[in-house]
Parts: sequence; structure tokens; C-alpha cells
Amino acid sequence: MSNTKHDFRIETLGTPSIPSPIKLSERLDDYIANYVSEDHRIIYDIETSAAKRPKALDPKELLEPAGPRKQVYFDGPKVKAAIVTCGGLCPGLNDVIRSIVMSLWYHYGVRRITGIRYGYRGFIPEFRIPDMELTPETVAEIHQKGGTILGSSRGHGERTEELVDSLERMNINLLFAVGGDGTQRGAYNITKELRRRGLKIGVVGIPKTIDNDLSFIEKSFGFETAVSVAVNAVAGAHVEAHDAINGIGLVKVMGRESGFIAAHTALAINDVNFVLIPEVPFDLDGDNGLLAHLERRLERRGHAVILVAEGAGASLMPTSETTDSSGNRKFGDIGLYLQRRLNEHFGQKGIETNLKYIDPSYLIRSAPANPNDSLYCARLGGNAVHAAMCGKTGMLVSQVNGHFVHVPIAMAVAQRNRINPESALWRDVIDATGQPSLMKN
Amino acid sequence: MSNTKHDFRIETLGTPSIPSPIKLSERLDDYIANYVSEDHRIIYDIETSAAKRPKALDPKELLEPAGPRKQVYFDGPKVKAAIVTCGGLCPGLNDVIRSIVMSLWYHYGVRRITGIRYGYRGFIPEFRIPDMELTPETVAEIHQKGGTILGSSRGHGERTEELVDSLERMNINLLFAVGGDGTQRGAYNITKELRRRGLKIGVVGIPKTIDNDLSFIEKSFGFETAVSVAVNAVAGAHVEAHDAINGIGLVKVMGRESGFIAAHTALAINDVNFVLIPEVPFDLDGDNGLLAHLERRLERRGHAVILVAEGAGASLMPTSETTDSSGNRKFGDIGLYLQRRLNEHFGQKGIETNLKYIDPSYLIRSAPANPNDSLYCARLGGNAVHAAMCGKTGMLVSQVNGHFVHVPIAMAVAQRNRINPESALWRDVIDATGQPSLMKN
Amino acid sequence: MSNTKHDFRIETLGTPSIPSPIKLSERLDDYIANYVSEDHRIIYDIETSAAKRPKALDPKELLEPAGPRKQVYFDGPKVKAAIVTCGGLCPGLNDVIRSIVMSLWYHYGVRRITGIRYGYRGFIPEFRIPDMELTPETVAEIHQKGGTILGSSRGHGERTEELVDSLERMNINLLFAVGGDGTQRGAYNITKELRRRGLKIGVVGIPKTIDNDLSFIEKSFGFETAVSVAVNAVAGAHVEAHDAINGIGLVKVMGRESGFIAAHTALAINDVNFVLIPEVPFDLDGDNGLLAHLERRLERRGHAVILVAEGAGASLMPTSETTDSSGNRKFGDIGLYLQRRLNEHFGQKGIETNLKYIDPSYLIRSAPANPNDSLYCARLGGNAVHAAMCGKTGMLVSQVNGHFVHVPIAMAVAQRNRINPESALWRDVIDATGQPSLMKN
Amino acid sequence: MSNTKHDFRIETLGTPSIPSPIKLSERLDDYIANYVSEDHRIIYDIETSAAKRPKALDPKELLEPAGPRKQVYFDGPKVKAAIVTCGGLCPGLNDVIRSIVMSLWYHYGVRRITGIRYGYRGFIPEFRIPDMELTPETVAEIHQKGGTILGSSRGHGERTEELVDSLERMNINLLFAVGGDGTQRGAYNITKELRRRGLKIGVVGIPKTIDNDLSFIEKSFGFETAVSVAVNAVAGAHVEAHDAINGIGLVKVMGRESGFIAAHTALAINDVNFVLIPEVPFDLDGDNGLLAHLERRLERRGHAVILVAEGAGASLMPTSETTDSSGNRKFGDIGLYLQRRLNEHFGQKGIETNLKYIDPSYLIRSAPANPNDSLYCARLGGNAVHAAMCGKTGMLVSQVNGHFVHVPIAMAVAQRNRINPESALWRDVIDATGQPSLMKN
Repeated sequence: MSNTKHDFRIETLGTPSIPSPIKLSERLDDYIANYVSEDHRIIYDIETSAAKRPKALDPKELLEPAGPRKQVYFDGPKVKAAIVTCGGLCPGLNDVIRSIVMSLWYHYGVRRITGIRYGYRGFIPEFRIPDMELTPETVAEIHQKGGTILGSSRGHGERTEELVDSLERMNINLLFAVGGDGTQRGAYNITKELRRRGLKIGVVGIPKTIDNDLSFIEKSFGFETAVSVAVNAVAGAHVEAHDAINGIGLVKVMGRESGFIAAHTALAINDVNFVLIPEVPFDLDGDNGLLAHLERRLERRGHAVILVAEGAGASLMPTSETTDSSGNRKFGDIGLYLQRRLNEHFGQKGIETNLKYIDPSYLIRSAPANPNDSLYCARLGGNAVHAAMCGKTGMLVSQVNGHFVHVPIAMAVAQRNRINPESALWRDVIDATGQPSLMKN
Repeated sequence: MSNTKHDFRIETLGTPSIPSPIKLSERLDDYIANYVSEDHRIIYDIETSAAKRPKALDPKELLEPAGPRKQVYFDGPKVKAAIVTCGGLCPGLNDVIRSIVMSLWYHYGVRRITGIRYGYRGFIPEFRIPDMELTPETVAEIHQKGGTILGSSRGHGERTEELVDSLERMNINLLFAVGGDGTQRGAYNITKELRRRGLKIGVVGIPKTIDNDLSFIEKSFGFETAVSVAVNAVAGAHVEAHDAINGIGLVKVMGRESGFIAAHTALAINDVNFVLIPEVPFDLDGDNGLLAHLERRLERRGHAVILVAEGAGASLMPTSETTDSSGNRKFGDIGLYLQRRLNEHFGQKGIETNLKYIDPSYLIRSAPANPNDSLYCARLGGNAVHAAMCGKTGMLVSQVNGHFVHVPIAMAVAQRNRINPESALWRDVIDATGQPSLMKN
Repeated sequence: MSNTKHDFRIETLGTPSIPSPIKLSERLDDYIANYVSEDHRIIYDIETSAAKRPKALDPKELLEPAGPRKQVYFDGPKVKAAIVTCGGLCPGLNDVIRSIVMSLWYHYGVRRITGIRYGYRGFIPEFRIPDMELTPETVAEIHQKGGTILGSSRGHGERTEELVDSLERMNINLLFAVGGDGTQRGAYNITKELRRRGLKIGVVGIPKTIDNDLSFIEKSFGFETAVSVAVNAVAGAHVEAHDAINGIGLVKVMGRESGFIAAHTALAINDVNFVLIPEVPFDLDGDNGLLAHLERRLERRGHAVILVAEGAGASLMPTSETTDSSGNRKFGDIGLYLQRRLNEHFGQKGIETNLKYIDPSYLIRSAPANPNDSLYCARLGGNAVHAAMCGKTGMLVSQVNGHFVHVPIAMAVAQRNRINPESALWRDVIDATGQPSLMKN
Repeated sequence: MSNTKHDFRIETLGTPSIPSPIKLSERLDDYIANYVSEDHRIIYDIETSAAKRPKALDPKELLEPAGPRKQVYFDGPKVKAAIVTCGGLCPGLNDVIRSIVMSLWYHYGVRRITGIRYGYRGFIPEFRIPDMELTPETVAEIHQKGGTILGSSRGHGERTEELVDSLERMNINLLFAVGGDGTQRGAYNITKELRRRGLKIGVVGIPKTIDNDLSFIEKSFGFETAVSVAVNAVAGAHVEAHDAINGIGLVKVMGRESGFIAAHTALAINDVNFVLIPEVPFDLDGDNGLLAHLERRLERRGHAVILVAEGAGASLMPTSETTDSSGNRKFGDIGLYLQRRLNEHFGQKGIETNLKYIDPSYLIRSAPANPNDSLYCARLGGNAVHAAMCGKTGMLVSQVNGHFVHVPIAMAVAQRNRINPESALWRDVIDATGQPSLMKN
């Protein structure tokens, strides 16, 4: 029932005219899957009203489903593909790399696949970073490891001209860019520059956002694994809090702009008493502030667990406004800040407390994907290859309303995905924790 | 783009007229979640065509969203609720019980919650099974355990009159029935009988189907956990197969009518070479049969892993057509049958093989829910309570297109959910395993 | 081949004269275990020389084996026992509590078992901390949780007179003190004061030392679990280091006085390049210092993992010499100190590095015991009860040379157990990491 | 206090006269580990009596400690070593392979290391099985996988002459044989044949016995991991039993000749009610038989868990006396036998029961080693290399009384290690399960 107008149309490099090397069917009931029809669409906006007849949908507002087409644009054996992984680590990166390589190789006969090392930086000649050749053999078992065999780093996505120069010089036809907001902005600018230069190079993004904060990305790979590890940290914090006199377990998880990890973690384990996220402002002081609520909780129960997303309470801290090398705003550390403020508060009041602060961020990022994330990454990577081989460009693969779809990069990066404090998700978090719905005075 | 007509309208016991004890909001932008509007709907059929304008949707074909309403039908402190868990074990049962109890108690002030033990059997007086009182204290930590604290058993769902007699005699106002196909049919018949008798007793189902084979249940609780444990078994089978001369790892997983666990497991771990499911017939013998393909695989690679759903290849075996106590058809054991047939085949041909057969079913069923399933169960249970307190009846809570919704039980049990062999899911399984798409001569 | 003279004789409250309620045997070959004979001994010092005949052993230097005796000192139904858990959390605490309660109850008929809450503090009247009654029912499932259901805190062990006053006032006959160095010193002083007052109250310690730093405690409970969790943290640090440009993974683990966790972790996972422990001094600066070695490693391999025990490098830091409430010396945080120094060093040299610091301490402490630790705790607790019921006092249960034995508390606390830098253990660590054997200039 | 005479003297190929390439020290207090002195010994028999002076020990009865010596017999760069893994899979095989390769390569400069594939069979020319070259690179990450990269098979260890012919033909100087009873008998015969032929080829065994049934092997690698996985299976069986009407969980674990896995598993998890092992005979029928005890347990508690080692109750079954290809006696399947007998018993009596049978054997065998086993395997492999390079032969590396030592193969295979039903271990199992000490009529 949103009023925003979407335009989900996908750019292509040209008309696909080569028969797909994948042998599928065009009829139903033969027990063989069909090619995806170019006419097929998925409805994006599925919330409506019982009272009024549903609006007629504009074809632009329908999503293009992912999957293999009957005709492809590129001839596999002539293609040179590149894969780059950028930004912070996230469970499932190696699964995605593996599945792109396997699909290019076995489905489309692509034999030249280059791994760009350490993010976009690996494209920039001045850093003299050698590439890594990728074959089914080199990637066969990488999904069992956390991280990315290509390495990663932040930044350099804004050096569009140099990146495109490199793509040209390396004779790359397809670029798979695995990364978050900054990475996809870079990919979008590359697409524009390629179009300007008239180069037939496809750019397909695989959205990586452990915080789940990219728009039109219903479910980001690695997110479930991240929640699992965060749950484990909260379980430890609960034990520490419970077994000490006025024990306070304070856990900080990722989430600069959105508190999805914190919210899902709190719902998955029933031991969190206060969840603090960037989307919902809160006060520390005052009778309705966190400190007062926490004090009352300790009086009543003798222990408490606080789960804070790294971007929460930003306005409370003296922030330095510098940006990191990806252009992200840098934050003061809300975990350390709360630790200090809580200890000061109870110290001044002469209340003995035992605060244990746990920051599991690196353990979350570096974990190997759990089976459900592995499965998801495998399908994401395969669908990215299908799209790229058909000449789709400037797009991301994503899952929306349970379907794998194509989304224009421009739309995905236009706005952050954030928790709506009025949504069922946040309502259920409030229910589960019992925390006051808004700790503002 | 299905042509089936749906009717998703939900039966109610009467008009909700009591203000909800849950304090939510009716306006946006106040950072407080709103009540779910009775006018709100979710589109079910979201596949369409770019070429033609979308059809106007019939309001009957729209799904009712789950969640708390502004007015409720029952007055919590006067309510007596019962929870029953039926059929085979499934990860997450205790999470569901816990969340129903917590939500009844803390949101709606219900203080009389009865656990019926060992399934519907617990209602039948002749078995003299005592009930279990459920309170926040008794359920606080049960979600850490597999199974169900209430115990479970199959059958007795067809003794509708006795079940309704018991509901009357026990003064129960709300029945939460957690179970699969047979259980929900039982619940449906109870609803009809209650209506016939004019009793204002609500019946809300929570669909439990580890095989994921109930219709309109996009995602069944415990399914992901089940896949995780199955993945672990396949990993073991792969090691055993790989490290032996002509090693064959044969793993059987649940799936009487549908092969979802097998298919997802094969996608989540890249070591399965043949997936056999009920939906896709296959031959053992003949040049295009499993034995011939397996033999060629062993010649080429020296080892193989076969993953078989329990309902696969039913036509190959001499089956006894008796039914178990839930009315399910009983199957010969396809795992043991394949083990024998494979050993015979290679024995007769004088080919040394080492077959290791693993049946992890009980380890799968009895596992505690993983964090993502815990979270899902918590929300399912909560939404079941919201629905029941509003007087909805004869319905299930479910997740469809990413939204928690209400589904009439009658619709959910009308037809099994099965893997479409022409779907993207099965296409991706064929891709991942490299198995021939159809092993029929 | 040590020259130290030991005196392993155990103090008793009196001659056991009550027939044990445990029905065992006194002859072999009847398939029924025998009572432990009071004459039975275990050789402690088992290293010797092939050349010379072994010395005749002094009976005082032999260890008394643990286990049930034919005669006991206390009459179970008349006994009141108390259990206290002190100091930092450690995997297995609940397993120990559980097994003491079960053994007292089922083997010896003890029906009054009191849990003292929050360590020795729970004995001191001024804190008004209520006790917790312990029965088989209350402890049945606690071993599945980390931490201690009794809660814990540091200190108060030195308030000997008040503690003994409380034991008297509470009519306690047996005290089981689960804790580390400070706790056992406290227990030792209690024993002396009890003897001075002529009170027949037995004191049996269960040594808890996650750092493995108590003498005559070959294996401390929870240690293996601790190593498992530390291994997991190092695995994460390795991924983070490996996938970044000049990535440095820095992990801090427990070990104030001894580096056992760090050493065992480095041996269990092959990704650590530098292990820093309290027993082996090292320099940061200079050509043979850590910084120079690390820089060379980064030049050569591009990444490195450092594992530091919290007590390592104490002399390098400006330390505050205050003690914490258990009388332990407080340390500056070597992890944060190294993080700062490394960043400064490479920053000044203009070398880009990416240091990720992980402190998994609370996740280690709060983990539930793994199966091997559970088993060990179960047997430790049972043997503590056997000893206590026989009137043994002022002693610990321990495992030495693979046998459960009794050790006088006085001996166990006389000296810390530390890694001998010339031992096979440390030699194997040096081998496994490839680090220079001593980083001193 | 055993009366058996031991002779622990180790055979050598000749006097080591080459200075070790490992740079250690010969003095204490220099913070550098010392070489192991050839004069150093470990006392084996450490149980004694307080009353009488300990006997003077015969040097033959003392164990030789493992570890690096100052002088070695072989010159690393000239050595060709072979590694073979035989028999059933066991957690840690890859860890052992890895550590042998790493130690040969990095400590002693050995550059020719050959992996023999599929056990002793890989030596026999008629099978035409190619070898596998082993380098640090090929083994770097294998410890993360279960199984053995070399593959394994049973048997062929008795073809001594052919095996020795192959060793000669392949110019192998050192053979590392990883395997159990049959494998080590094979290695012993190889050693004798080598001596007869006057060949200077060293044979060092690494004892692999997941059942823990080799003598003088205090702790077999993989055993703890095996217990962990078995604990998991019992946990599942307990849930299944507990949640059904008269539920019976029946779990079969490995243990042909000895019940160590079953005993340790029962101690590590508190949910087993009956442990059946080969060492302790039991009856099924009669008033003191298992069936009667089980029936009483079901009446009393409504559920039960039985844990049976595969070699238990052999006399109860009609056994076929054939032997498998390793010469092991083949057993009827006690798990399936009990399943049938229990179902018959309760069926005949008209007692409804729900028996769930779980056989986790392959999941146990194929698991990757847990951290503690990894550490142990790493040290075992390293010590095997130290021994081999010094010219020791016909010996095993082992851990006895907490020390790594050398044991003559002849002694280790002379007799099985079995649980003594009168030992503290079995006494503690009886205590933990509450089962009658002997179920014989």
C-alpha cells in the first residue's frame, strides 16, 4: 500500500540471440523445467485492501524473475568473467564465488574466470595486486571456510574511470560485484561509464549486506548465520549476567543504519531485556531513559541483558564526522560508550553491578555460512550468472516475496532498508523483550 | 498464474467487541506499531505477465494478515485454553508451545492453560492421561530442548465427537492444535462439530510438517533445522564414500509425499550425486536407470552419494497398503530396499563396492530448533494467539509471501504441497547434482 | 625426577565406622566393583632414569585414590551439606553441582543440601543473600546450561571467622567449595579454624581453574571446553587476517599466571603464528622483538595471527598494582595494549595493516561443558562426595596420572601450576607456530 | 598392582649418530626445551600399596618417553617415507597424516613422502592403486575434514612378504602405519620380515582404535570426538523416548570387544538407563533379565534409553562365525536383534511401546576431530616422526600416564584393552545409570 512509484525495468546490452547451452524445456508436464519466459513477472507490492478493488499494476512496477532464458547474449567459451568481493566479511562469500564459477564453467562453458583480489582495489594498477585464476578445482571446497578467498577491502569504488580502464585492458566481458551499498554504487557508476563508452560489458551485483539494510533485498545472504552467532553471544551474556550480583550483559552487534541483526537475535533467544537500534531513538537519562529502566529491572530481577546495534544511539555520543574509506560515516563505539555510562551511573549511586561487555562482531563476520545460507548463496550465484549471460546489466539478483528476481542497482542503492518501528517485526521485538516501546522522555 | 480459485475467508465465532488489552496505536509516525486492520489483505498469487494488465483480484482470494486487532472476542481472564501436539516430532514444537503460553499469559491475561498430553489421545477419557498445567514458569526454558514437553502420538483425530465432548467437559474455549495433515483434518472436523453444536470454542491450527508438504504453508517450522541435520548426515556419508573403494553413501531422509528436505539438503551441500524424491519417478534397471548411472559414476569417480526421500520410488517396491494410526499410507523402507538392490547389483557384476547406509531421521526430528526456526516458531505461536483471541476459528497461522497470514484449515488440507519437477527449485537441484533429469527408460 | 618432597597425607575428622550404604564388593572376579582400600596408593612422581634403580618411595609421597570406602564417617540422613561456587565462571560448574547433589542424595541418603549463593559472600549475614535448597529435581537439567545456578562472586574467602560462624549457625556438616586458588586458600583457612574450634565439619574442595594453574591438578574441569571456544575465536581471527591486506588477527584468552589455554589452543588449530604467555618473557621492540618478527611475517605472508594470554607481557605495560576482590593482582589489558602498540608501530612506518582484535573471554567462561568435560565433572563431584562422607577434610579431589585422587588443599595452593618453557608442551607449541623460541633481545 | 611382567624395550635400526636438525638445548633454565635423554623413563605401573615399600622396578618395565633426541639415525633429505591408513574411519586420521608430513618436512627436511592409498591394499601391485605425493601444501587444510585423504580399507596386512617387497621396490625408509589391531599386527610382521632380510627400514605405528581397545593406549585419538557424537545420538533418543507413550530409545555404538564408547557416553549424558557392553554378560529373559528390568522401568517412568555396544550380548544371538577381511570376527547386529526382541516381548504382552532405533556409527566415524583430538593427533604424529628418525622401529607412539611414550607393537597387540567390570569406570557407569550391576539370572 506504499505510494512510491517503482521502475524495475532492467537494462540489457543487446538482444540475446544465441540458443542457451542449458537444455531445458518449453512445455509443461514433461518433468523438465522450462526456461524463464521474458514475459513472466512478479508482483512487488502485495499489501492491499479488502474493501477496494486492487489497482491495475503498471508493468514497470513488476519484478523480472531470475533464471535461465532460452536465448543468451554471450557465447560462453569466448567470455572472460571477473569476480570481486568488497567491504567487510560476511558469511557465504565463498559460497557465492563458488557458485558463480561453477555455473559459468559447467552451464555456459566459460573457461576464463578471474578473481580480483582485495575488492575494487585489486583493479587499480598502482597497488600491483595479482589476480587469481578461478576454476572448479580451486573453488570446490571453499564454501566450507568463512571469509572470501579473494580477500576484501573497502573503498576505491568511486574511481570509476580507472576501474573501467582496467575492465577494458583485461578484456573482461562480465563483472560480478559482490558487496554492499558502496560497492553497488561503484558498480552502478561503472555501468554508466561503460554505457558512455559503448562497451558491451555486463555488470551484475550480488548484494552483500550483513546488516540487511539494502532496499529490495528481502533477505541478505549470511544474515541468518550472523543471527545464529549473535544468539550464541547473547546466550553467554545472559549466563554472565544471571550468575553475578546485579549482572549486566551488554552485547554489541553490527547494524550501522539498521537494527535487523539485533531485532532478529532478540526474537530468536528469549533472554534480551533491552534492544537498542538506530531506527528507534532513546534517552539514557531521565525517568523514561535506559538507565532508569535498567535500574528498575535490576531491582526487580537482579540481572539484565542489553543488545545494541552499532549504529544505535548515535546522537547520544560525541561523534567524529569523518568517513571511512568506503564513504561510510564513522561512529563512536556505542558499546564502549554504554559500558562507561552504565558503570558511571551505578558507581555514582553506589549500586554494585557487574557489567560484562561482549563484542562478537568479528566472530559473526568470519563464520562459514550455515546450511540455509549456503543453499541461498548457491542459488543467488547461479541466478547472477543466468542474468549476466543473457546480457542483463546494471542489476542485482535478489529474493523478493520468495522469488529470485532482478532489481536495477539504481533502485537498490537509492535508499537504505530500515526497520519500521511500526512494523510487525518491531512490535514482536517489543513483545518479546518487554521493554518500553520508546525510551524517550 | 495458477487458474485455481481460492477462498481464503476465515470463519469467526462472533464479532470482537472487547478492546484489546495490548496497547498499540492507530496512527502512523508515532513510533508505536498499529493494530492490524481488518481491511488489510495480502495478495496470494503474485506471478503474472508483463504483457497483459493484471486481473482484478477477487477479495476472497486475498489473504488475511495475522497480528493483534484492536478489538478481541474473548476476555482473557475468563478463557481456558488447551494446547495439543500431535504426530511425529519436529524441531520447534517446544518453541511453539512456549510462545503460545507466553502470549496468552502476558498479552491477554489468560491464566488457565492446559497441555493435552500425547496428542489427541490425551483427550480421550479411556486412556486416562493426566493433563499438564502450563504457566510461564513451566515453559520458560523448554525451547532449549528438542521434542515436545506434552509428548505426542499419532491418530485419534477422527474421533471427532469424543474430542468435542472433552472440550465441552473441560470448559475449554480455545484449542491450539499443533500438527500435520491428519491433525489439521481432525481440527477441521472438530470445528464443524463445534459449529453444529453451536459452541463458541475457537480452533486454531499451527501447521507442523517437517516434510514441508502442507499447502499454503510456505515455510514449515523446523524445516531449516531438519535440513541442517540432514546436511550433517550427508557430509558423513560423503566422507565414508570418498574414503572407501567404490564407496557409496546412501542417506534416507523424511519425505513421504514430497521431497523438500532431500532437495534443500542437496542444494545446501555440494556432495550429493543423486536425489530421489516422491515427485519424480525413476527406474532402477535399464540403461537410463539409477543402477546404470551409478555404475558409470563409480567408474568415473570411484565414489557416490545418494540421497533418498522416504516416499521416493514407492512403485518400485512391493508395498503393503496398510495405513498407520494417523491414516498415513505405510511405506516399505526405500533405504533398505536400495541398499539391498545396490549390493545385489554390484555383487552379481563382481564389482567391489562399499555401501554405507545412514538413516538420520530420529536425529533430525528430535533436534532442538536452530535460531532461525526458534524465531519463526515464536512469531507463529504469538500470531496464533492473536487470531484465537479475536474469535477466528477453523484456521491456521502460516507465512505466505513473507507475511504471517490466516489460512482456512479446509484449504490447507485439501491438497499436498509437492515439489513441481518443472520448478526453479528442482531445476537447481538437477544443476547442483548433475544427475540426469529423469531416470526413466 | 623432581627433588621436591611432597606430603600427600590427608586429614580426617575421625575414624569411619559406619558401613557404607553403597553396596560394593570386597573380592575380585564377581563382576562387582570393590570398595577402595585405604591401603591403596598412586605413585605421583613417575619420571625416572633407566640407568639407576628407582628410589624407594616414601609412603607420604604417594597419593590416596578417590572413591567409595567400605566404612563412612557420616550418617547420610543426619548430614546437612552446603555447596558454594566462587570466582569467575567456568564451563562445568553446573555439572559439578549436579553430581554432588545426586551422589549425596542417591548414594548416601543426604536430604538437606544447601546451595550458598554468590560465592563465600552468601555466607556473610550482612549481605542477606537467601540460600537455595538443592534436590535431584532442582538440579536434574542444570548441566545443560553454562555458568552456575548458585551464582558466583569473588572474594570474602579471607573472612574465615565469619565463614566458620555461619557453618556452625547453619548446622552444616559438609562444605563443598568449588573454586580456584583464592577459594581454596579460603577453604584451607576454614579447615584450620574448624580444627581449632574442634568442629567435626568436613571441607572438600573441587578445584576450578579455567587457566589450569593449580598445582597437582593435572586437568581442570572446563579446560577442554575453554580451548574449544578459544579455537573457534582463533579460526575467526585467521579468516579476518587472511582476507585483509596485511591482516593481523589478535586474540586474547584467559591465563593470568599461566598460558595453558593459549598453548593448547595454538596446538589444536594450526593458524596461530605467535603465542604469548606469562611464563615466557618477550620484547616488543628491537630486532628480535615481536614487532620486528611480525613485520617480517607480514612481508613474507601478508597476514598473521597472534594469541596472547591475559597475563603475558605484564612487565611491558605500566601496571597498576592494585588487587581485585579475590586478592588477585590486577593487570593492564595486554590485548588492548598490543592493539595500540601494533597500530602505532605500523602507522609510523606507513605500513597499511588491518588489525582485528577479538576478546572471547566471556564466551569461553559461560559456555556449557562439552561431553568430555561433563563426564569429568560428573566423576569429580561423585568422588568429592565419597571423600567427604568418609570424613576426609582439608582436601581436594583431582586427577593425577589418570587416577582420581585426594590432594591436601595446602599443597595445591602452595604454588601455581605454570608452563615449563623447557617442557614438551611448549616445545610442541614452538614447533607448531614456527615462532622464535624466545623473542628477547 | 598387576603381576604381569612387561618388557617395554624398543628395537632400533642402529645407533643414531647424526646430529638432529632440530635445535634444542641440553641445559635447563635457558628457556629452550631440552632433547629427550635416552636415559629418561616413565613408570608404567603406578598403583601400589601404602603398607609395603614399593618394589624395585626392572628397567625393562619402564616406558621410553617420546620426543626429539640429540642424535638421529636417518638423514632427512635422503629419506623416503610412506604413510598408510587402514581399517575403519576414525576422527583425526587427517590430523595425524598432516602432522607426520609437517614434522618430516619442516623438522627433518624429508622431501619424499608417499601416501599409500586404501590401506595395505595400496602396496599390493595387483590392485594397481596409484600413490599420492604428500607435501605441506597438499595436507595444509585436511584436518578440517573427517576421514582420511588417503582412503582406507580393511585387510591385506597378512601379506607380509608382498608388503615388504613393495617397501623395498619403492625405496621406502620409513613406514608410518595408522591403524588398529589388525594393522599393527601387520606392521609387527613387516618389522620381523624386514629384520630377517636385514633391511634398515623403520616401522612406526600410530594406534587407531575408536573403540579404545588396544593395550597400553591410554587414550586413542578420535575417541573423545566419537563420544561427543554418540552423546548427541543419545540426546535424540532420549527426546524420542520421552515424548512417546512407553518410548524406548535404543542406540547402538561401536565397540566389538570393549564398551568404552558406550561407557563414556553414558557418563557424559545423564539420560541412559541401561548400558550393555561386551565385557559384562547379561540375560534378556528371566526376572533379572533386561526385558524384565526394562518393563519395570517403563511402568515406573514411561520411557527408557538403552545404549548398546556392537559387541555386547554376542552369546545371545545366533552368530555366524565368519571373519571379515581384517580377520575380525563378524557379529550379528545386536541393535537389530534387541529391536526385534523388545518389540516381540512387549507385543506379546500387549504393552504399547514406541521403540526408536538409532545407529549413528557412520556419523561417529566420519566426524572431523574436535579441538582436543586435533591437538592430540598433532602431538602423536610429531612424536611418531621423532621416533622414526631416531631409528626406532616395531613400535607405537602412545600416551601413558599422561606422557607420550614408545610401546613395542608386540606388546600392544598381545591383548585387548577392555573395561574391567570391577573398575572405577564401570562402577561410575552403574551409579550414573542406576541399572542393576549384573543382569544375569
